Amino acid sequence: MSEKLRVAMIGHGFMGAAHSQGWRVAPRFFDLPLEPAMQVLVGRSLDSTVAAAEKWGWAETATDWRAVIARDDIDVIDIVTPGDTHAEIAIAALEAGKHVLCEKPLANTVAEAEAMADAATHAATLGSRSMVGFTYRRVPATTFARDLVAAGRIGEIRQVRAEYLQDWLADAEAPLTWRMKKEQAGSGALGDIGAHAIDLVEYITGQSVDSVSGIIETIVKERPVLGSGSGLSGTAGEGRGAVTVDDIALFSGRLNSGALASFEATRFRTGRKNALRIEISGSSGALAFDLERLNELEYYDATQGALEQGFRRILVTEHDHPYLDAWWPTGHMLGYEHGFSHQVRDFVTAIADGTQPRPSFADGLHVQRVLDAVERSSAAGSTWVTTTG
Amino acid sequence: MSEKLRVAMIGHGFMGAAHSQGWRVAPRFFDLPLEPAMQVLVGRSLDSTVAAAEKWGWAETATDWRAVIARDDIDVIDIVTPGDTHAEIAIAALEAGKHVLCEKPLANTVAEAEAMADAATHAATLGSRSMVGFTYRRVPATTFARDLVAAGRIGEIRQVRAEYLQDWLADAEAPLTWRMKKEQAGSGALGDIGAHAIDLVEYITGQSVDSVSGIIETIVKERPVLGSGSGLSGTAGEGRGAVTVDDIALFSGRLNSGALASFEATRFRTGRKNALRIEISGSSGALAFDLERLNELEYYDATQGALEQGFRRILVTEHDHPYLDAWWPTGHMLGYEHGFSHQVRDFVTAIADGTQPRPSFADGLHVQRVLDAVERSSAAGSTWVTTTG
Amino acid sequence: MSEKLRVAMIGHGFMGAAHSQGWRVAPRFFDLPLEPAMQVLVGRSLDSTVAAAEKWGWAETATDWRAVIARDDIDVIDIVTPGDTHAEIAIAALEAGKHVLCEKPLANTVAEAEAMADAATHAATLGSRSMVGFTYRRVPATTFARDLVAAGRIGEIRQVRAEYLQDWLADAEAPLTWRMKKEQAGSGALGDIGAHAIDLVEYITGQSVDSVSGIIETIVKERPVLGSGSGLSGTAGEGRGAVTVDDIALFSGRLNSGALASFEATRFRTGRKNALRIEISGSSGALAFDLERLNELEYYDATQGALEQGFRRILVTEHDHPYLDAWWPTGHMLGYEHGFSHQVRDFVTAIADGTQPRPSFADGLHVQRVLDAVERSSAAGSTWVTTTG
Amino acid sequence: MSEKLRVAMIGHGFMGAAHSQGWRVAPRFFDLPLEPAMQVLVGRSLDSTVAAAEKWGWAETATDWRAVIARDDIDVIDIVTPGDTHAEIAIAALEAGKHVLCEKPLANTVAEAEAMADAATHAATLGSRSMVGFTYRRVPATTFARDLVAAGRIGEIRQVRAEYLQDWLADAEAPLTWRMKKEQAGSGALGDIGAHAIDLVEYITGQSVDSVSGIIETIVKERPVLGSGSGLSGTAGEGRGAVTVDDIALFSGRLNSGALASFEATRFRTGRKNALRIEISGSSGALAFDLERLNELEYYDATQGALEQGFRRILVTEHDHPYLDAWWPTGHMLGYEHGFSHQVRDFVTAIADGTQPRPSFADGLHVQRVLDAVERSSAAGSTWVTTTG
Repeated sequence: MSEKLRVAMIGHGFMGAAHSQGWRVAPRFFDLPLEPAMQVLVGRSLDSTVAAAEKWGWAETATDWRAVIARDDIDVIDIVTPGDTHAEIAIAALEAGKHVLCEKPLANTVAEAEAMADAATHAATLGSRSMVGFTYRRVPATTFARDLVAAGRIGEIRQVRAEYLQDWLADAEAPLTWRMKKEQAGSGALGDIGAHAIDLVEYITGQSVDSVSGIIETIVKERPVLGSGSGLSGTAGEGRGAVTVDDIALFSGRLNSGALASFEATRFRTGRKNALRIEISGSSGALAFDLERLNELEYYDATQGALEQGFRRILVTEHDHPYLDAWWPTGHMLGYEHGFSHQVRDFVTAIADGTQPRPSFADGLHVQRVLDAVERSSAAGSTWVTTTG
Repeated sequence: MSEKLRVAMIGHGFMGAAHSQGWRVAPRFFDLPLEPAMQVLVGRSLDSTVAAAEKWGWAETATDWRAVIARDDIDVIDIVTPGDTHAEIAIAALEAGKHVLCEKPLANTVAEAEAMADAATHAATLGSRSMVGFTYRRVPATTFARDLVAAGRIGEIRQVRAEYLQDWLADAEAPLTWRMKKEQAGSGALGDIGAHAIDLVEYITGQSVDSVSGIIETIVKERPVLGSGSGLSGTAGEGRGAVTVDDIALFSGRLNSGALASFEATRFRTGRKNALRIEISGSSGALAFDLERLNELEYYDATQGALEQGFRRILVTEHDHPYLDAWWPTGHMLGYEHGFSHQVRDFVTAIADGTQPRPSFADGLHVQRVLDAVERSSAAGSTWVTTTG
Repeated sequence: MSEKLRVAMIGHGFMGAAHSQGWRVAPRFFDLPLEPAMQVLVGRSLDSTVAAAEKWGWAETATDWRAVIARDDIDVIDIVTPGDTHAEIAIAALEAGKHVLCEKPLANTVAEAEAMADAATHAATLGSRSMVGFTYRRVPATTFARDLVAAGRIGEIRQVRAEYLQDWLADAEAPLTWRMKKEQAGSGALGDIGAHAIDLVEYITGQSVDSVSGIIETIVKERPVLGSGSGLSGTAGEGRGAVTVDDIALFSGRLNSGALASFEATRFRTGRKNALRIEISGSSGALAFDLERLNELEYYDATQGALEQGFRRILVTEHDHPYLDAWWPTGHMLGYEHGFSHQVRDFVTAIADGTQPRPSFADGLHVQRVLDAVERSSAAGSTWVTTTG
Repeated sequence: MSEKLRVAMIGHGFMGAAHSQGWRVAPRFFDLPLEPAMQVLVGRSLDSTVAAAEKWGWAETATDWRAVIARDDIDVIDIVTPGDTHAEIAIAALEAGKHVLCEKPLANTVAEAEAMADAATHAATLGSRSMVGFTYRRVPATTFARDLVAAGRIGEIRQVRAEYLQDWLADAEAPLTWRMKKEQAGSGALGDIGAHAIDLVEYITGQSVDSVSGIIETIVKERPVLGSGSGLSGTAGEGRGAVTVDDIALFSGRLNSGALASFEATRFRTGRKNALRIEISGSSGALAFDLERLNELEYYDATQGALEQGFRRILVTEHDHPYLDAWWPTGHMLGYEHGFSHQVRDFVTAIADGTQPRPSFADGLHVQRVLDAVERSSAAGSTWVTTTG
């Protein structure tokens, strides 16, 4: 490694820990063309930002992201703030000539996402790279699934099932947090986890969801108000408040090839903790993935002898599987945060190569359009709605 | 066993073999209050009927089902013919005072099913029992699932997923048979296997599907015409013919409690052979079943300590599990056709007791209404349609 | 079917029900060259024998097995009595010119088994066929596993793991029954279930276990005496009695090819109900089977591309899988007792063809020798002992 | 974090990468009482040591481990060299007053391990802490298994099965490396992976293996010599050389409670990549773990209602599961190297607290004695051998 790539990260919640781990670990396992330096951590509260920077290993801290973006010695802006701030920060950073990595979802609205995609397209002509953080594309098993589809190993895609199942709201007495408020979270299960399912389907199949029909719904409509002292009014902690985002989203989508895909995103599938599952059925094979067993990919090869066909549990831990050359010997498992190292590798490589990394802001915009179309379909009695307008 | 219960079975396809096995085996394992006698097998072609009767052990054969229904020495009419003949035969049998067991789906149309349900209601007042053959209710694991739900072991039902996945049409060159022709089969994946998923959801939850939104579709629209000599025209075996039933059905349903259920029935899920899977998510637990592992039921108890929760693979083979007292010691597996013995046990018991067996013709009619509503929703751009008219 | 094959079955416990089901059902699904007739059921107690015969469908009953063997109108003697009576009955039947099907284990001692094998060899020259009832050879998945090994699909066998895990004695307060008494049962877990594991390994690999080193042990050494009124003394039901058979057997075996096999038979693997599991590891592949999922076979093909290898779950339910042509469409499961129908098919076919059915009495004798060698090794501090003397 | 804990690591193979990741990552997720500083990396070859230090982030390099041990500014010596060098380095480090973390196996011989354990005992009185690197104890699922056993959740331990299955030598043409030479590797599958199985059994059960009976064997006795230019003679790369370590080890062990445990360690279980599996069967429950699915623990509770018992798949990813409070939300998976961070946390904590970390050198010595006893038993015809003499 020679030349430095100086990074500033804005935000320091759960995603900040994951991104920090990616910046820290990637250069230790991959031979990167540029050496990331964890330069500045930016947060609104100085105290908590300093604590996070010390814990995660950022060299400096700041509270004014605009000032950081203005610095000449910063190359990359990594955005891990809530979705309603993405557009403003990302566009400013792109205009300042920075490379931008933005957590998913790209934005809370289609309009914001469009502005971001436009800014990214323009900035690309001036050399700025931008990428949205759908890291589940970078699980070796999903990348390998994409490779198998692209190589024709399951033939023509016939239908798709994608579901992202969690249960952390199954308890009706779980308290009301900002994630259940539309004005802050933008969306519920649909945007939070359904977005991953949509991106992963588009990534693995190489197709886009062109129209949808679906329903979103709030199962538990009121929840206990949290009585914390975090700046809320004197009635904090008393009574119940309305949940204004969806708990569940069920929708069908039409891929551009004409194939149907069926989606489910929910926080109410009791006992399912983080089950992002995709099954792609093709004319000559099928693939199945479950994030709860992320080192495995199931592959069915329908071209083998009829008596010998079966879903094959591939441990995606061979040296020549995607990303695996950097890690451990065969049979040694990777975990959740490895995807963030892979993201860093791919982003840094694209910056060095001057190529457009994927998923681009345009990819993120498309996911946003699908989410928006699902909401519009639900509002219109589940009639079919196109994702392009 | 003392008094005989003389049975005539009309039809002798695949289902005839399964029903025969039920009539033959049930009295050998269960202590039935009446002794079934396999008296008459009825078919259109004498030769094939005689061959089937000899193979399966029916005492007599006949080709005129009306004549058989008219016989005084026949107590039960078991109907295993194609769906378009069910109504005529069943109504005639009920009017003749017979007990009637009718294969699913109850009929090919709602109108026929309504007539059958009306006939059954009237006949019941005169002592005739009638039942529709949704045998997957009688897999011990599904019966036990119903018991657990009824006992409140998963709390309030929050959402349901039901899918019936097969792949026998995944090959686009699989030939065109009567099952792919609407005039004979009535419906494709929706009626053939989707009906099972609907019935099983209603059975296990104890709720009804009140409205639906969905889409049905034919994936492979033309298939090679079969060139058999079975009475077709001289051009038989040449060219391709249109598939006029659905290959796939995707729909959401609203249960009467308000909970959402998501359904999929398909013959194109490559690698899935007979995967009727149900998952019921409740406020304090969940249940999951897969027909490909029919001796197992997965149960998640959310009332246990948080660190110890997990889906539990119950082998439903204990002596005190439903139906199991008749069979083998713990850990010895049952297969597909055991459901037909269980069906015979329950039907014969209801006849002896003078009680209404379930699923009744009214239950079968309701499933038919759901199927019809899915077709209507699909035709109306997936808008929501009630199942009651 | 034309000519009758008249069968008498001696014994009517749990195995009697299973064998009866085999005789009853096999001719209804398979085209047998001879038509089995369930002629006589023989038992010591007339009342219980009559009840069993009525329930299972045997035409006559008898209490004197010697008289039945002497009858000219009986072709087959099917022995399902406890192991200590096998030798006497089987030898007498063979000497009377009958075909003999004998439940496993062939006998309780090597000496008895030798006498039986000798009698079988002699009788074969006079046209009598004999077979021992290791029905787990006739599960389609195990038969198919044997076929794959024989076709070289896993290459040279490198090592074998076989285990038969149950837990019905895990409760230390489970009462003392005859199965825990050496004088009646002969052996504990070793002979009861270990015998199946040995036979299945020899069947699938086509090799024999030539020597063994192992240990057998009684984990719970005393159990409550059963206080039933079944002819025991006045102190019945009081106190505890000694368990005189093994609860667990652990042993290694050397196959004739030189490969090592590791065995475990136990009634103390809490939570395992009937887990007969075999894994055969070869130079170019592997096979894994579990009786608790008996419709599945896992196959690993090490000749495929390194990135695509994985254990493949084959649903052994295709029409062209072993025995499956007689049963249901793809994806419809078989259960425990289907093996007994397959056994009848193979036995009747061998009788009609005049060929030696397998497993022969010689095969059964060999298993007995392995069991005996394990007991001798255990008694000699686990030193290696050959199975041939 | 305040006070620094300055670490020198000796060796930089595969284990060096894993240990480095542990030192680097642990302080970023856990609140450690001392702050580890990755000070010196020591290796024989300067060039490769410098390259590794740069890649992994060590501040300095050195080639003379004795000189590093003599430095006052080094607190911890972390040993990841081959086993034949452990004793010399560890004893010297302990005598120099360092804390010592030593990779497993503790040594290549019992005599070396004894000397190390003696040195550790003496050094402990002077404040030096020492630990051996059996990191599979620190997978959350295995730690939680230990907790459940200790809490009596499976009752009295009845029997144990432990196997460590790999297949990287299944190919008979895989070349001869130092790992297949006894003088360097000390042992084959037995010491390399069997040691993990032994340690894990002793850890989870809280018992020790007191005697063993077993066999070790080389399946492929000659392999192609590697033709590398790494200092070998002129005939390098030609012909075949003898494999002088075991490929497979099968043994039974007696725990101090009297229960039997069955072990298998092998590099020939085709298709099994890294399957360290433990099943502990108790009088009121059972536990099963598989390293290939390391985020899961299966638990069977035999105290629940008989109809509802089943192996429960617990996702060991809850905040309150062992080590999980430091990582991600529920349902986000950990991987192989997380165990090394947990090891650092526990080691650093013990140093700060002045308590004895486990597994101690005495624990490592005991594992060595079990390995030695297996070899002696194998040499003595599989007779039982105690592990204490």
